[in-house]
Amino acid sequence: MKITNEHTVAHSAVEMTQVVLPAFTNAVGTVFGGQVMGWIDICAAVSAQRHCRSSVVTASIDSVHFILPIKQGYVVVLKSQVNAAFHSSMEVGIMVIAENPLTGERKQAVRAYCTFVALDESGKPKPVPPLVLLSEEDQRRSKAAGARREVRLQHRKEEIQHVVPVKT
Amino acid sequence: MKITNEHTVAHSAVEMTQVVLPAFTNAVGTVFGGQVMGWIDICAAVSAQRHCRSSVVTASIDSVHFILPIKQGYVVVLKSQVNAAFHSSMEVGIMVIAENPLTGERKQAVRAYCTFVALDESGKPKPVPPLVLLSEEDQRRSKAAGARREVRLQHRKEEIQHVVPVKT
Amino acid sequence: MKITNEHTVAHSAVEMTQVVLPAFTNAVGTVFGGQVMGWIDICAAVSAQRHCRSSVVTASIDSVHFILPIKQGYVVVLKSQVNAAFHSSMEVGIMVIAENPLTGERKQAVRAYCTFVALDESGKPKPVPPLVLLSEEDQRRSKAAGARREVRLQHRKEEIQHVVPVKT
Amino acid sequence: MKITNEHTVAHSAVEMTQVVLPAFTNAVGTVFGGQVMGWIDICAAVSAQRHCRSSVVTASIDSVHFILPIKQGYVVVLKSQVNAAFHSSMEVGIMVIAENPLTGERKQAVRAYCTFVALDESGKPKPVPPLVLLSEEDQRRSKAAGARREVRLQHRKEEIQHVVPVKT
Amino acid sequence: MKITNEHTVAHSAVEMTQVVLPAFTNAVGTVFGGQVMGWIDICAAVSAQRHCRSSVVTASIDSVHFILPIKQGYVVVLKSQVNAAFHSSMEVGIMVIAENPLTGERKQAVRAYCTFVALDESGKPKPVPPLVLLSEEDQRRSKAAGARREVRLQHRKEEIQHVVPVKT
Amino acid sequence: MKITNEHTVAHSAVEMTQVVLPAFTNAVGTVFGGQVMGWIDICAAVSAQRHCRSSVVTASIDSVHFILPIKQGYVVVLKSQVNAAFHSSMEVGIMVIAENPLTGERKQAVRAYCTFVALDESGKPKPVPPLVLLSEEDQRRSKAAGARREVRLQHRKEEIQHVVPVKT
Repeated sequence: MKITNEHTVAHSAVEMTQVVLPAFTNAVGTVFGGQVMGWIDICAAVSAQRHCRSSVVTASIDSVHFILPIKQGYVVVLKSQVNAAFHSSMEVGIMVIAENPLTGERKQAVRAYCTFVALDESGKPKPVPPLVLLSEEDQRRSKAAGARREVRLQHRKEEIQHVVPVKT
Repeated sequence: MKITNEHTVAHSAVEMTQVVLPAFTNAVGTVFGGQVMGWIDICAAVSAQRHCRSSVVTASIDSVHFILPIKQGYVVVLKSQVNAAFHSSMEVGIMVIAENPLTGERKQAVRAYCTFVALDESGKPKPVPPLVLLSEEDQRRSKAAGARREVRLQHRKEEIQHVVPVKT
Repeated sequence: MKITNEHTVAHSAVEMTQVVLPAFTNAVGTVFGGQVMGWIDICAAVSAQRHCRSSVVTASIDSVHFILPIKQGYVVVLKSQVNAAFHSSMEVGIMVIAENPLTGERKQAVRAYCTFVALDESGKPKPVPPLVLLSEEDQRRSKAAGARREVRLQHRKEEIQHVVPVKT
Repeated sequence: MKITNEHTVAHSAVEMTQVVLPAFTNAVGTVFGGQVMGWIDICAAVSAQRHCRSSVVTASIDSVHFILPIKQGYVVVLKSQVNAAFHSSMEVGIMVIAENPLTGERKQAVRAYCTFVALDESGKPKPVPPLVLLSEEDQRRSKAAGARREVRLQHRKEEIQHVVPVKT
Repeated sequence: MKITNEHTVAHSAVEMTQVVLPAFTNAVGTVFGGQVMGWIDICAAVSAQRHCRSSVVTASIDSVHFILPIKQGYVVVLKSQVNAAFHSSMEVGIMVIAENPLTGERKQAVRAYCTFVALDESGKPKPVPPLVLLSEEDQRRSKAAGARREVRLQHRKEEIQHVVPVKT
Repeated sequence: MKITNEHTVAHSAVEMTQVVLPAFTNAVGTVFGGQVMGWIDICAAVSAQRHCRSSVVTASIDSVHFILPIKQGYVVVLKSQVNAAFHSSMEVGIMVIAENPLTGERKQAVRAYCTFVALDESGKPKPVPPLVLLSEEDQRRSKAAGARREVRLQHRKEEIQHVVPVKT
């Protein structure tokens, strides 16, 4: 696997713009949390795919806090990039920004971390290329992602152990 | 605020059934993580609403692990209930079960915890009724929710501190 | 074909919860009749599938009466179960309940009967297992379904005879 | 209320063309019954609206038989017209035709009768203009609609009597 | 290729009726231009398919002017027909009419010309049958389409020449 | 109206990323032309809104050529910016790029020019700020937009003259 500038953090950067249409809002006129999660998942998946150039599936989404309601008519800008590449998985960081269309004021609304697994053509996990870290910021993010991974793997193990037979 | 059996855990229980239609699947024929998050958010919001009988907004979603890909054509059953009521917020627990339509085999696919804030008519947070805990299981869940809340509030504080001015 | 408790009425029971989002409403702020029919069809199809464990297609929907408009923001709960199994078809009964999210008041909004045909892998009708009737209620429902079937088959025959060549 | 040629049967005629996209199909590659019901409801509502020029809501849909599966890629043509006007309600007849896009072969797939109630601005039922019947075909259809109405009103009365209190 | 009345202009005529639901509207309560373009594309594609009886893809859409905003609740009627058949492509003309549901007033809202290419089963362009022109109106339209085609091919050539390598 | 760097071309730049899901594709597995037009319209409207900070409606879309089919699973990147500001309207240029998710190869698929009108709170056209042109590229684009405008206004005048009374 040759490492090229196709495996830098910048190469995986994705920007997605959405508008909060009436169809996406709840009774108080703000966007559904689940709709935002849907945008996050697709935006982040494109970042992961750009790094590994194969199909990917979402393995986990770290906890997210909706610190700002996003109103109907607002513009939503999502920015994502791969933070770290592990064996066959990648952590992607996503920033969600809400923009008031009439004033231009922009505020951070949500921040999220998603983990994706790269799949080969038969649907089995496959190795991903190492992530080329060029700046100190890249280094810092990758290190933080490694720490989150420890917590995540522990949590995942507990989730799998918790699985109880489901009554048919 | 009179406490009645409208404020038991059982009273907030919601069951939602969905089918994985072609429109909801990715390149490898399994449902998008973001689509599942959308279903979780709506199912959980109905549980929260049943407890507080007012509008609610999603405040946070704890980390979720997709431990099982759910294929096109599968039936997805979501079950949610309020785990704990705090001052103006509630934790809702959601179990997502994937059912093979041809064999009937059911497996736990995802487990999630969402937090909702109750809103009054002007969109401001309002107090929610205490949750009536009838069984030991109810007690155990509420206690665990309280512990998760400590972690969550700490995390939320960090998220809000992390917010940096966004370039307009 | 071994008859097990996988073929009881209870085993085919499905509960589906939906919320009337703005996207589902007409000019007077109530849900479209056609949207409710779409939910009924999917909910009922899952019941039919649980009984026969194969693909199913909708053969007919008995007449429905919308006796209550369902408003935006209301919670809609659908409950379905197989009422009777015939040779390669099944009648499924569906009850649609509208719940006022602020008061919790629940009212029956629609009742429907759908008939599904079980299909084998080549898309041909295939026999379905007999329905295990455990209670008097089960017996009563199955008998009523049998009576409705007589009317339905007669009606279907008329519909097919009515088919006239369509100008191309 | 002046009767003009705006109240003839022909004036209420609506033609709607749809294509069976992948998003509308089930596991065996044919369109969902519920999707067809959704198209029927909207097409018929436009016919009803053209006659009464006010908002309308679906009161009932007579039983429908899906006598032909409609495959992905097929063109679906719906034709509707008001069959009869009663006091504040109207019966609309709908014919659904499936067209093979590669051969042009057209077949009748479903026939349906929907009843709509005209609403004034406060959402209350309001009188509708009489239907101007110009041809023998118009006369025949209106008479048949009157007969179906007798059955329907009887059925509706039974439905309303059947309503039982729903456990909250 | 035998020329029959399946290749007249009238044979390719399509009528599509849509209602401007809340989900299709912007902040000022009128339908999105892009939504109208989506309806135009599907309506016109059915006309093209009726002429060539094979799969088709959109090659170009001539400039369109939205000369009338279409409000929520309005009925939209699209009418399309093949104007001219060339070697493996066809020009389809589409008229979009906005109807006020309460007054019945109808106004032309948009007029568009789309070009489609017929594809064989391997996805390669294939010849289309000549268009049978029966009336003077048919002749006039076909001639005008021929003139538009000259402009369009010149424009297309410029577009292709303009294509510059995209940075990966 | 103070002119600030909020009125530069760069300030109006929007990037939108979409994935061609199965729900967006036709029988030959490529995205619908109308779906792409929908994305173009929303992306461009956000650019226009960023310049004038008010509601906008689409006035026209210049002719577009689909010079490359975009397949299911491909990533679609749209980039738009305001090219020129006129009295109460703006021309927005949009570039649509198709990215092969497995190889990363990117190709220009469509180029479009949309015109938007700024609206005040009562829905009437309102003046837009002049566009600040900083580079030669900005100057060149604005000049070309001015030339296109001449053609467009002439075309629009013809369209409006062409409008004939529609039979009710």
